[in-house]
Amino acid sequence: MDDPFGEMLRDALAELTGVGPRPTLGGVYPRPTIEIIERDDGYVNGVPAIRYLASPEDWYAFEHRALQRLSGHVLDIGVGGGRFALAAQDRGLTVTGLDISPGTVEVAAARGVRDTVCATVDEHARSGRRYDTFALFGNNLGLLESRERAPVFLAALAAMARPGARIVAQGTNPYQTTDQAHLAYHERNRARGRMAGQLRLRIRYRRLASEWFDYLVCTPDELAGLLSGTAWRLSDVDDADPPFYVATMSFTGA
Amino acid sequence: MDDPFGEMLRDALAELTGVGPRPTLGGVYPRPTIEIIERDDGYVNGVPAIRYLASPEDWYAFEHRALQRLSGHVLDIGVGGGRFALAAQDRGLTVTGLDISPGTVEVAAARGVRDTVCATVDEHARSGRRYDTFALFGNNLGLLESRERAPVFLAALAAMARPGARIVAQGTNPYQTTDQAHLAYHERNRARGRMAGQLRLRIRYRRLASEWFDYLVCTPDELAGLLSGTAWRLSDVDDADPPFYVATMSFTGA
Repeated sequence: MDDPFGEMLRDALAELTGVGPRPTLGGVYPRPTIEIIERDDGYVNGVPAIRYLASPEDWYAFEHRALQRLSGHVLDIGVGGGRFALAAQDRGLTVTGLDISPGTVEVAAARGVRDTVCATVDEHARSGRRYDTFALFGNNLGLLESRERAPVFLAALAAMARPGARIVAQGTNPYQTTDQAHLAYHERNRARGRMAGQLRLRIRYRRLASEWFDYLVCTPDELAGLLSGTAWRLSDVDDADPPFYVATMSFTGA
Repeated sequence: MDDPFGEMLRDALAELTGVGPRPTLGGVYPRPTIEIIERDDGYVNGVPAIRYLASPEDWYAFEHRALQRLSGHVLDIGVGGGRFALAAQDRGLTVTGLDISPGTVEVAAARGVRDTVCATVDEHARSGRRYDTFALFGNNLGLLESRERAPVFLAALAAMARPGARIVAQGTNPYQTTDQAHLAYHERNRARGRMAGQLRLRIRYRRLASEWFDYLVCTPDELAGLLSGTAWRLSDVDDADPPFYVATMSFTGA
C-alpha cells in the first residue's frame, strides 16, 4: 500500500538535515517538500512538510500549552515526525509514538522517539499496554473521523487507559471561517448526513496517494456530544487562540 | 472557465506585499501560496508560488543570461507575475506581456508591466503587432506543447516577427534525471507515440483546476528537429547550467 505521508516525511527530514535525497528543481536547486491534501470536493491544499519536524521555538502558543498537559506514560497518536514526542521526552515523560504509516514511524524513530509502534489504536489496544495520557496533537482530534468512528476510537483508548487517564487533543473550530469554499463544503456534508466538518481527504505525494479517509473538524460542543455514552468526559477546553483549541477529556472508567 | 493560475498569483502577490487576503492557517497564521501541478500519471508537485514574483537577486544564473539576450520590442509569452517583463522594462526595453490567464494578466499589470494582452499567440498574431524578440522564460519553451502544436505555435510567432527577430526560450533537458517517476513517464509517453518529455498537466489551486494541457520538456536536439520546416533556426544554446538551457532561435523569413 502506498505510504505518501512516510515518503514525504523522509524527504522533509532530508530537507531539514541535508542528509539523503531531497526534492530539487532539475536535480540542482533545492525545493521545499510539499504535502498535498486533496478533499473530495476537489479542493487541494499544499503544505510545507517541514512543519511536521518543527522545533518548539517554531510552534504555535497553543501547542506549547497542549504539551504542558501531558503526564505519566504518553501515547502520542499519529506521532508523525515526532516533534511533540521528542519534546515530551525532553520533559522527562515516557512516550510511545503510534502511527499507521511505516515510513513515518521510521522517521520518528530515527529522530530519537524511543518507543514507536506502527498500528491503529484498535490494534494497539490489543497489546495490553496502558497509558496515562493520550495525545492527539497537530489537529489530530480529527482522527475521531465521524459520529460512527468516534465511539469505537474512544473505546480503544479507554481499553488502554490507566485510572485517571486523560486525552489531550488539539482541534479547530470549523465555523470560524468566512472562506466560501469551506462553508460550501460544510453545507454539502450536512446535506449528506455527515457532520459539517467531517472532511473526506487523501494525502498525495509524488505518485503516491493514500486511501480516502475521514478527518473530523468539530467544535468543543460537538466533541462533547460525541463523548456522550463513552468512558470520557470533556473536562477542559483551552480556546485562548481561536479557531484552535486544546480539549482535555478525563477517563471516567475504573 | 476556472483560472487557477490567476487566483494563485493573486494570493502570492498578497503574500509578497502584505496587502489583500492571503492563505492562512485558520485565518490566523500566514501560509505560503502553493501551486499544485498534476500530471496525468497521478504525479503531483507542489511549488511555492512566490517564485513567480521573485526579484532578480533570487533568480537562477541562467535566467539572468536569458534576460540579457532580449532586444527591441519584446513579447513575453506566458508573462506570469511579470518578473522577467519588469526586469526587461528596467533595462529600457519595450515589453508586451501575453498570457491566457485573465487573473495573471491583471497581476502583471498591477505590478507595473505597462502593456499586457490576454490572448493565445494565435489570437495575438491576428492583431498585426510585430516584435523583435519572443521570450519564453520560466521553462516556457514547454509552450511548444508537442510535435503537432510546435509548428503552429512557431508560425504564429513568425507572423509577428520583424526581420532579424529572435526567440529566446528557456528549456530543460528531460533526460538528465535518475528519478524513476520521471523515467517511467518518459517510457509511457514513448509507448503512446508522444515525445518522451511531452507532459500532460493541469494546474490546481484550491477548488479550481485548469484544463489538461501539454507542456513539452525537450533537449536542444529535439528542439532543432521541431524547428525543421519552420521559419526559425536554432542559432545558439547556452547550456552552462544543465539540465537547464537557454535556446536562441533566429527568424529566417523576410
